[in-house]
Amino acid sequence: MPTISKRGEQMPASPIRKLVPYAEAAKKKGTKVFHLNIGQPDIETPKQVLDAVRHSDFKILEYSHSAGNESYRRKLVTYYERFGIELNHEQIIITTGGSEAIMFAFMACLDAGDEVLVPEPFYANYNGFAAEAGVTVTTITSSIETGFALPAMEEFEKAITPRTKALMICNPNNPTGYLYSREELEVLKELCLKYNLYLFSDEAYREFCYIGDHFSAMNLVGLEQHVILMDTISKRYSACGGRIGALVTKNQEVLDAIMKFAQARLSPPSFAQIAGEAAVDLPLNYFWEIKAEYLNRRDLLVNMLNKIPGVFCPNPGGAFYAIARLPIDNSDKFCQWLLESFEYEGKTLMLAPATGFYASPGLGLNEVRLAYVINTDDIRQAMICLEKALEIYPDRTEVAMEAMIASR
Amino acid sequence: MPTISKRGEQMPASPIRKLVPYAEAAKKKGTKVFHLNIGQPDIETPKQVLDAVRHSDFKILEYSHSAGNESYRRKLVTYYERFGIELNHEQIIITTGGSEAIMFAFMACLDAGDEVLVPEPFYANYNGFAAEAGVTVTTITSSIETGFALPAMEEFEKAITPRTKALMICNPNNPTGYLYSREELEVLKELCLKYNLYLFSDEAYREFCYIGDHFSAMNLVGLEQHVILMDTISKRYSACGGRIGALVTKNQEVLDAIMKFAQARLSPPSFAQIAGEAAVDLPLNYFWEIKAEYLNRRDLLVNMLNKIPGVFCPNPGGAFYAIARLPIDNSDKFCQWLLESFEYEGKTLMLAPATGFYASPGLGLNEVRLAYVINTDDIRQAMICLEKALEIYPDRTEVAMEAMIASR
Repeated sequence: MPTISKRGEQMPASPIRKLVPYAEAAKKKGTKVFHLNIGQPDIETPKQVLDAVRHSDFKILEYSHSAGNESYRRKLVTYYERFGIELNHEQIIITTGGSEAIMFAFMACLDAGDEVLVPEPFYANYNGFAAEAGVTVTTITSSIETGFALPAMEEFEKAITPRTKALMICNPNNPTGYLYSREELEVLKELCLKYNLYLFSDEAYREFCYIGDHFSAMNLVGLEQHVILMDTISKRYSACGGRIGALVTKNQEVLDAIMKFAQARLSPPSFAQIAGEAAVDLPLNYFWEIKAEYLNRRDLLVNMLNKIPGVFCPNPGGAFYAIARLPIDNSDKFCQWLLESFEYEGKTLMLAPATGFYASPGLGLNEVRLAYVINTDDIRQAMICLEKALEIYPDRTEVAMEAMIASR
Repeated sequence: MPTISKRGEQMPASPIRKLVPYAEAAKKKGTKVFHLNIGQPDIETPKQVLDAVRHSDFKILEYSHSAGNESYRRKLVTYYERFGIELNHEQIIITTGGSEAIMFAFMACLDAGDEVLVPEPFYANYNGFAAEAGVTVTTITSSIETGFALPAMEEFEKAITPRTKALMICNPNNPTGYLYSREELEVLKELCLKYNLYLFSDEAYREFCYIGDHFSAMNLVGLEQHVILMDTISKRYSACGGRIGALVTKNQEVLDAIMKFAQARLSPPSFAQIAGEAAVDLPLNYFWEIKAEYLNRRDLLVNMLNKIPGVFCPNPGGAFYAIARLPIDNSDKFCQWLLESFEYEGKTLMLAPATGFYASPGLGLNEVRLAYVINTDDIRQAMICLEKALEIYPDRTEVAMEAMIASR
């Protein structure tokens, strides 16, 4: 029997999905599980976005252009204009989800053995794409004490090696919810120019900012040839299953290379391109309503978390995630225990252990990520569960709380 | 400005798409172009397949399971049963097109530097996926004189090296239309067992066989742990834009590895999974009607080709492609000339130069691939154009014709 590849062996398993069997077992026992573990919003996909697909009348479900339908790309030009990003439609390549945009950037810009430098904690699937591309993710650590602000320029400089080819951020951030400021992006620009690096900017959550406007890496003057924007309709329009994203850059050489990868896989999905194109026509108050809802959830979640003894959660500026420090020994163990051995009034909650978001061993052991993608009633009940759970968790530790008090 | 990766530089451009600008220019001049160059069928997608999506009533376009909807995978179990392939739904992973199935197999089974051995001419995008995975495509040559039958076992054995990890076939074949027999598959089995190789079997055109039944690699007794089936709904239901395929294997270790790659990219497209699931319920006479149409087209195309002086085209047993030998010096040049410098009564045709389907330099220079995805009226007109074109092509050569006559 032939063996699988080393790459297949070394490919990291999803740190979130490994808990799924425990959640399924809990549900089988009749326990209600509040899912704060994944970024699948409960917000309905806008009706006019789904209707655009349902009312379509083509007769052949054809391949689209490998870069996506030209009409959709032209429409996206108007979308980006709202953020002061001036583009032509040939600078936009429609991808199969934001995932493929990340993969294409890794493939076209980095060779096997090259390094991409990312502040940790970071979106765990970057590891997977890096493993596929043979690329190494190197990290500098951002701290819960600063709310996961960008580490200082010197930290980056210490971590940059001759193999470093790109810096990468997710802004606003998954998993921390941190919203990078214009000043922080200027620091990244300085680094990219000084060390001749690409800046990969994953802006999946652009619209979901609660403490000010989003500043896109695409608006960094003088960095146009370095910036590659990874985008997606998944979170913006609650359309995760569409698998439609975009890679945007003004670097023609990168566009030309990526088109070759895009042609090899023929085309992005046709149905959801129709959805994506219709979504650009949504009235702007669509986002105001969604943002108001997420803001309510964030405020409730963060307030309730910080009232639980021993818990600390910085207030995230964007996206719909928060990372909280808990008085626990091991977040993987604790999250499994929540599903396997705990219930309060027939309910429990599913969280994402933060260990999966760090590359540095030992970090994230007392942190969890919470996605506020469930309604406020459910968040309230879930936080009561969490408080009760921490009261009786057998391996509770006060180290985290003491560290938190000391840091305040 | 940072440079693109070596991988990005070396990634092959699509051999077909590079002619697209010439076709566009021809159309701008008002010339009618018959597209025999790509595998986009003109057959309508079955109404009930499109209606399943149009009549769907979910409210949130959610991520599906990373392996695809369980209901769809269970339905596919019944689809494969029709071909005597016994599976459970956990042996099926829904992919984003057949393309992703190929990519997943390369990633999970082969490491950078490993070799996959393919009879040439072969589907050109295998080169692209191999470049992404750092894998080398090695080839043995099949010949137009035998209609592109499987080369002899000794030819394979000469080409197998210590780095060879897999054999790969497309059955029935793109680009040749050749339908491999059960006996030929047994030869591949013997090779796989002797050299401990995977057998990657791309069966995108399974239903389109005109000279007998299809024998799937999945039915090779004793090779269960070696076979990986790559499949797609694209051609079967004229649903290329859905981007829904499947990877099927009974090798649990491979399935486990591939699930990690599948989880990293989250899920396959949700809309078209609904379409794929509905397609399994189509009555069997759907395929009879489509096959009857393709058979008419094949017979017309091959007959007309073989009546053109100096042209030879073996009769393909399946799929909807044929490779013809023409009395020309260089197929790339000739195909460009057809678009750039030729028209007959305001019409011309677009063909795929066969050079793009060979890895061995110099092969395919006097061959083209024709996809019979246009109706018989158009095929007739296109063949008249081709005959007229060959009469006046300035770099016509009789070498091919002489070789053909000698070989008969």
